[in-house]
Order: sequence, then C-alpha cells, then structure tokens
Amino acid sequence: MGFRATPRVRSLHSFPGITVAQIDEEVAKLLQLKAQIGGDDGKHQFVLKTAKGTRDYNPKQMAIREKVFSTIIGCFKRHGAETIDTPVFELKETLTGKYGEDSKLIYDLKDQGGELLSLRYDLTVPFARYLAMNKITNIKRYHIAKVYRRDNPAMTRGRYREFYQCDFDIAGQYDAMIPDAECLKIVHEILSGLDLGDFRIKVNDRRILDGMFAVCGVPDDKFRTICSTVDKLDKMPWEDVRKEMVNEKGLSEEAADQIGEYVSLQGGMDLAERLLQDQKMSQSKQACAGLSDIKLLFSYLQLFQATDKVVFDLSLARGLDYYTGIIYEAVLTQAGVATVSTEAQNGAEESVSVGSVAGGGRYDGLVGMFDPKGRKVPCVGVSIGIERIFSIMEQKAEAAAEKVRTTEVQVMVASAQKNLLEERLQLVSELWNAGIKAEVMYKKNPKLLSQLQHCEESGIPLVAILGEQELKDGVVKLRVVASREEERAEEIVCSDKISIRTLDPSQFDQFNSVYFV
Amino acid sequence: MGFRATPRVRSLHSFPGITVAQIDEEVAKLLQLKAQIGGDDGKHQFVLKTAKGTRDYNPKQMAIREKVFSTIIGCFKRHGAETIDTPVFELKETLTGKYGEDSKLIYDLKDQGGELLSLRYDLTVPFARYLAMNKITNIKRYHIAKVYRRDNPAMTRGRYREFYQCDFDIAGQYDAMIPDAECLKIVHEILSGLDLGDFRIKVNDRRILDGMFAVCGVPDDKFRTICSTVDKLDKMPWEDVRKEMVNEKGLSEEAADQIGEYVSLQGGMDLAERLLQDQKMSQSKQACAGLSDIKLLFSYLQLFQATDKVVFDLSLARGLDYYTGIIYEAVLTQAGVATVSTEAQNGAEESVSVGSVAGGGRYDGLVGMFDPKGRKVPCVGVSIGIERIFSIMEQKAEAAAEKVRTTEVQVMVASAQKNLLEERLQLVSELWNAGIKAEVMYKKNPKLLSQLQHCEESGIPLVAILGEQELKDGVVKLRVVASREEERAEEIVCSDKISIRTLDPSQFDQFNSVYFV
Repeated sequence: MGFRATPRVRSLHSFPGITVAQIDEEVAKLLQLKAQIGGDDGKHQFVLKTAKGTRDYNPKQMAIREKVFSTIIGCFKRHGAETIDTPVFELKETLTGKYGEDSKLIYDLKDQGGELLSLRYDLTVPFARYLAMNKITNIKRYHIAKVYRRDNPAMTRGRYREFYQCDFDIAGQYDAMIPDAECLKIVHEILSGLDLGDFRIKVNDRRILDGMFAVCGVPDDKFRTICSTVDKLDKMPWEDVRKEMVNEKGLSEEAADQIGEYVSLQGGMDLAERLLQDQKMSQSKQACAGLSDIKLLFSYLQLFQATDKVVFDLSLARGLDYYTGIIYEAVLTQAGVATVSTEAQNGAEESVSVGSVAGGGRYDGLVGMFDPKGRKVPCVGVSIGIERIFSIMEQKAEAAAEKVRTTEVQVMVASAQKNLLEERLQLVSELWNAGIKAEVMYKKNPKLLSQLQHCEESGIPLVAILGEQELKDGVVKLRVVASREEERAEEIVCSDKISIRTLDPSQFDQFNSVYFV
Repeated sequence: MGFRATPRVRSLHSFPGITVAQIDEEVAKLLQLKAQIGGDDGKHQFVLKTAKGTRDYNPKQMAIREKVFSTIIGCFKRHGAETIDTPVFELKETLTGKYGEDSKLIYDLKDQGGELLSLRYDLTVPFARYLAMNKITNIKRYHIAKVYRRDNPAMTRGRYREFYQCDFDIAGQYDAMIPDAECLKIVHEILSGLDLGDFRIKVNDRRILDGMFAVCGVPDDKFRTICSTVDKLDKMPWEDVRKEMVNEKGLSEEAADQIGEYVSLQGGMDLAERLLQDQKMSQSKQACAGLSDIKLLFSYLQLFQATDKVVFDLSLARGLDYYTGIIYEAVLTQAGVATVSTEAQNGAEESVSVGSVAGGGRYDGLVGMFDPKGRKVPCVGVSIGIERIFSIMEQKAEAAAEKVRTTEVQVMVASAQKNLLEERLQLVSELWNAGIKAEVMYKKNPKLLSQLQHCEESGIPLVAILGEQELKDGVVKLRVVASREEERAEEIVCSDKISIRTLDPSQFDQFNSVYFV
C-alpha cells in the first residue's frame, strides 16, 4: 500500500502544485460519487473498506486491547484517579490556536447548518476546556478515548488517523514536584506491568532548555524553533541537527556548538547538581529553578523506588508549545521490540524513535487560555502511547504463536445423543443463572465431535455432556477438554428430567478468565 | 433552553421556509466566526461549551456508567460473546440507503480532500459492513460505542446527538429461534440485573405483521407506511392511528377496522396457537410461519425461565426497514421510573414510550446488501437503551441521596505531625507496589484534619496515620474512617525509618471497590 506520495511526485513535474496523492484522492472521490449516483437500484457495488487510516478491531485484537486497558486502568485506579469523558467533537474554535502548524491535520465536520465542529485532536485540550467550563481547580483524572488526525498514516508502525490516547493528569496547586513524581511512578508501574522489556524514562525541563538557549546566546525569538530542532536529536545525529540550526535557522556556529555540549549530557541527580555549579548555566535563573526541581524530583523518585529507569537527558525537547516545566518521555530500549515494528515498512527515517511509548510534562498555562479571567490551573500529566503498545502486544502474541482467547466461556453444554436440545437449553440457562459463563450450540442435533471441536478452537476448558444414561442417573458428565479427564458431577443433583437443584459455581472458578491457553 | 423550534415558528410567518432554529444556528455560526477573526491576538473570549446535543461525563456519571457497563458486559460475556470495534466514521456510501428518511440526520465530515466520510449512525450497519468485508458467516459479538445523529435533542429525557449504543448480535445459519430466544434471555438477565423495576418484553414478527396486512386487505405497496402508523400505537390511541391510516394514508375503513381488531391482541403461546386457527390469519403462509416461530420461541423461553416478562403483542411494529422476522422491545412498567425522566420537560408527546429500554429483532438481509454476491448472513440482535438507563440510574442515585464514589481508593496515607512527607511518600509507594489503592496529599505539611476530611468527602474507608511515636515503634496506625476505630497495624513491620518488610494486601480486601457508601 502506498501511503507515501512524495517519491512519486517527480514523475508529475508537468503539473506543478499537484501531487499524485491528491489526484488519487480526487479519483477515489469521483468513483465514490459515481457509485452513489449509479446505485439507486440498490444493486451497486459497495467499496467494502474502512476509511483511510482507520481499522476495525477484531475479537483477538479486542482481547489484547482489553488486557492492556485493564493493566493501565488498574494502575490509574491504584493511584486514586477518577475518570471523565468528553464528546468526540468540539466547537471548532475550542481547538483553534492550540496546535500550531498541526492544526491543518484537524478533521472538520461539514457545515450542515448549526455550529462549526471539529473532531478532537487530543484529550488535553478538551480536558482544559472541561476544567475551565466547570471551574474545577483540583482533579486527578484519566481519560481513554480515540482522537483524530488527518496525518499520512504509517499503519504498519501502529500509526493511524483514528487512534487511542490514554491520558492521566493531575490538576491543582500543590507543592513542587510531588504530583510530577507520581506521574513518573505511574509510567514506571505501567511499563513494568505490561512486560514490554526494558525501558528508560528521559526527563528534562522546559525552563532548563530555555535557560540553556539563553546562556548559549540563542536570540529570544528563536527559542521555539531551535527547540524543535533539538527535538529531532532522537531521529538524526548531532551533525545534522547542528547543520539545521546554523544553515536553516541562522544560528551562530558558536551558539550551536555550546548547545551541542549541553545536549550530549545525561545523568541523574548528580548531573543536576553539577549544572547548578556550571559557570554558564548558573547565570540563568530559569535554568536554576528547573535544575533544583530536577533534584527534588529525583529525591522523590528514590522514595518511590523508581530511579533505576529515569535519566535526566538535556537533549529531550518535546515539541508541544504548552509545556512550562518538567517534560518526559519513555522509550523501550530492547532493540528487538523496536525492530519488529519497523521491519514491515520501507522508510526507515523514524525507526529510531519507534520505542517511544509514553510522554508528558507540566503545562501550567493551558487551562488559563480557556478561562475568561485567565485564572491558571497548574497541570502535570502523562499520555501512554497505547496504540504502539497494542502493536507490540499483537506482534508478541503472534511471534509466540499464542492462542488468544476471545471469549471467557468456562463450560460448553453438549450432548452425545440426539433430541436433547431442551435438556441442553435448560442446563445452560441454569448455568447462566448461577453466574457461570456457558455456551450451547444453536442446533437441534449437533454432533458431539463438532461440539468438542468448538471447545478446542475457542479454548473453552470444560464441557458438560448430557446423555440418556446421565439423565437417568440424574448427573452431568464434566470433561476437562485439554486432558479429557471426566468426572460425574454428582453435586449437580437432577430430578425429573434435568431440573438442577444445587449447583456450586465455585467449582468453575479455577477455569475463570483463562485468557491465554 | 429551547431545543424545540416548532412552537415558535408561527411568529415568523412573514419569512416562509425559514425557522427560528435555523436563524439561531446561523447567528451562532457568525458569532463563532467573529470570535475567531477577532481572536488572533490570543486574548479573545472562548465560548465555553460542548457542541449542541452533547455532554461531558463527570466522574460521578462515569462511576454510574462503569457500573452499568459492567453488569451488561458481564451478561454478554456469560453468554460467550466476543467484542469488536469499528471506526467512528465510515465511507459515506456505506451508510447511504440504510436509514430511509433518517439519512438527513447523518453527520458528514467536511470534504478536506480525500474520501467522503460520515459519522456512524448506529452500530448495526458497521457490523454488517464488517461481516461482509471479512467474509464472516458466524459470530456472536457485542459492541458498545457512541453513535451520532443530528436530531433535535431532548437532553432532559436522556436523548443526545452523541450517545452510546450497546449491541449484542448473533450472526449465522442456525436452527430456528434458538439464538432469538437467547437474545430475549439476555434482555431478561440485564434488566433484572440492573434493578430498574418491573419490565415487560413485547415480541412480534415482521411476517405476522405483513401477513396481517395482507389478509386485512392492505395493498402490497402500503405495507411499510401502514406499518409505521401501527408503530405509533404506543404513543397515541387507536382512534388517532385509525384516522391516520384512513385519512392520510388512504386505507379503506374496513381494512383499518380489521387491523384494529388484531393489534389489540396480547398474550403468550396460546394467542399464537389461536391465531394459527384464525380463519383469516391462517390464509397467510407468512403469518403462519411467524406464528409457529412465536410458539417455538415461547417453548424455548420456558426452558430459560423467562416467559414471566414476555408478551406476544400484535401492535408492536418497530420502524426499521431491515427486520425480517421476530422483533421485540422491552419497556419499564413502573410508572414511577418513567415519570421521573419526563417531569423536567414540557412537551409530553413522548412520555408514554419513555420506558423503552431495549429493542431488536432478526435481520436476515442486511449483510447481503454489502456482499458483492449478495450472500446472506442471517442475524438476530438486541440493542440496550443504555443512555436511558444511565439517566434512570443517575436520577435514582440522586433521589436516594446516595453518595457515589468516584475513586476506589482504599487507604489514605496521612501524617499527624509535620515533616513526614518522605515517610508518607515511601509508605504510599509500598502500598502501590503491593497492589493497594492508595493516595497521599501533594503537600509537604497537610493538616491531619484536611486529610481526614478528604477521606470523608471521597469515601476512602481507611487512613494510615504516621506519627513520631509510630515511627519509633515501627508501626502504622490504621483508622477506619467511618467508625474512627483504630488499630496499630503490627503486621506492617517497620525497621530503620519506615521501610516496610511485609504487608498483607488481603487486610485491605474488605475495603475493595466499595462503590456506594
């Protein structure tokens, strides 16, 4: 599939200003229209596909998704978070001016009479709108929902136009770095809990970056653009970053070289301490405030037993404009995992950063942008890169040839002989009423073999077999599908035909929620 | 708030063809544009609201939503259902021709270059598209997701432009009425489980309706329109329905009166049997097929112990075109519940049907509309009216003045004296690591009173109190917030300052997931 149009533009030099991708899209649209016009007889061919950059989740993917969600939500709840939800679209103006250049990637709804609406681009801006609108000044909440970006998707790397975001944020005026440290602790717990291999959490501070630019002689009005060049250090070598600073952004060579020295530094609390003594750096009040906070952060992370994975890294410069303090990003460091997800894809320019699975920071000014009086609500938060994690988990399951169960059925009610539909329906109903997850085939006379095959295919651990003899004896034969062990469930006392008197649900407990068999 | 434009149109008779609602919308749009144009200095006023007909869910609403979901999903899983998910938007043409007149309520996305897209209008059409696209002929799946309709929302009655649907469907070629009966069993289990008061499930069959129309002398080309008039019987008396049939739809008085006799009938298996003997009805092969299936359905429902709530009701005629066999609808019969949800609202025209909380039926032709070769996949399904249920639960919680917990925190780590931040952070971290849901205040020196108040406000049942004495003794004081009982948690062995050696998470189990205190 050709998601990348750029390489093909060359062959079209006779049509300046138009790309092959644009032509493709126009053709697709015209064909779609044609199908609709010609289709009034109800017999036209549908284009059977999902919209570009989107996908269905099949039951196997959903089982993995649920498992990931349950780990993550479990962690958020352990930390006392509430949850909220906001609509999938917002007033267009709510999103205006929040995403800089990326605004062009926002999906707008058609003007059908009424308000101008756009699909949400992230969960942070709706969160800030929610806080300002409801005058909330204190909340610890998570929000897991899909967001929308008209990006050129690279779906083989787990990037889509419709994708989940999974955000945890703490809003409120608190003592320095305590909520910030909890966010990092949460990243630590989640990435450990998901068992994705080793990881590292890089931290830095917007104030340290700004202070560094100042003491290195970057003009004030170039902070943001130089910062976004530094942000590329995880994707390209220093030499190229330096070239961009000097040649494209017009920075002096001296300034670039001084930046180069700082951004190569990595360490822990010791590095923060050293930089506080650094002759140049210590001239910036901003940088000093940031460095003191990094020290405080590490002291809290020690109490949280989380320093093993955290690195103070001066090259970390997350793109988003709204960060005001600490910023962080977690990356998977096991090459294996990162490689799997790029192999299927030709372009390699993003392969280095494939390991990024979480990121966030402090944004003390955003909510104030929505408040009529500009009242600020300090916030710090983290976003878990859940789509990337889904992809990795799916690849892992495939690589291990794991059989992922897509239902939680504990027992299949089957019969060996014909004409026992009523007895099967009655038994399965008793099981449902007792809270047991049970299934029955929707056939009058299914073959025993096909009933057992269904158990094996979908991983149902137990089968309850009804037969003439069992009915006569008033028992049900329970068979463990994997071992073929059988036992006559004597405690299932049957009278008359098969009205079950007592049934102890606990006997099924050991077969509860076996996801992977 | 004025969601209903119709009553106000009269005052505008000098502008034919335009309604006040349309003018309101245009004005809103212009004001929005004005705000954007004038707002480039970054200081303009935002309109702090969600889009018309949508709402945020606050933590309390989310707690109720999660509780409802967990009951419903628990039931679906007990019946062995898988789950899938589809994108929020589909190619526009996927939705074309599926909703008849209601198509005007579909939200389209703006043409930004690329495919023409629309927000999903329900989950059934995406499900059919999914089956056809993946050539799936057998599946039992549920899907809970939001759908979008540009309706005039009546939000006080729990009706929105963005709302959840909650669908369970069984696709596949099976023996008659077995999956159909399971769908009704599921409705029975869910409505019983949610404890919404008494309910009734009305069933009928599209073939019985069509057969009835035929033997009553309704011309073939009037079946659908007469059917949609019958559908209004839950909202208006027979006299008005008859008038519409005769005066507006041009049906003969004799035909209308014959229909009138049939649609007044209600009963169980006996009624189906009687109608099979009915001189007129028995002339229709279609009707007989439907009636035999109703008999079969009741026999299976008897095995499922679900007949107590099920009524065969010949006046039930669900609107959707795609039903081909059995149809059903569940209504709450306790006037109390139904009334609460309409009181807040002036117009009363829909108050009678407010009790409807689930509906569905068999649709054997829909998937074939998507298959290039028209291959059919028989389907039967049910949709739970989950927004209505949310509203009722919210009102119930409010009426009972219940305190709804929005977090699941089991223990708050507090201190009685100053300068114990480090000890608190260390203890809360130990608790998190042991899987216990715990919180700590993000202050260096919070007052004990404010820590205890936080527990009472958010329903945290336990508080672990650290003090100089406890630290010396190597213990933690555990206090039950409600009773103020205290015990020294001796099994929390502390050495040095407060590095905890053993901590038995089971002692917190009794305080687990207490939703309502």
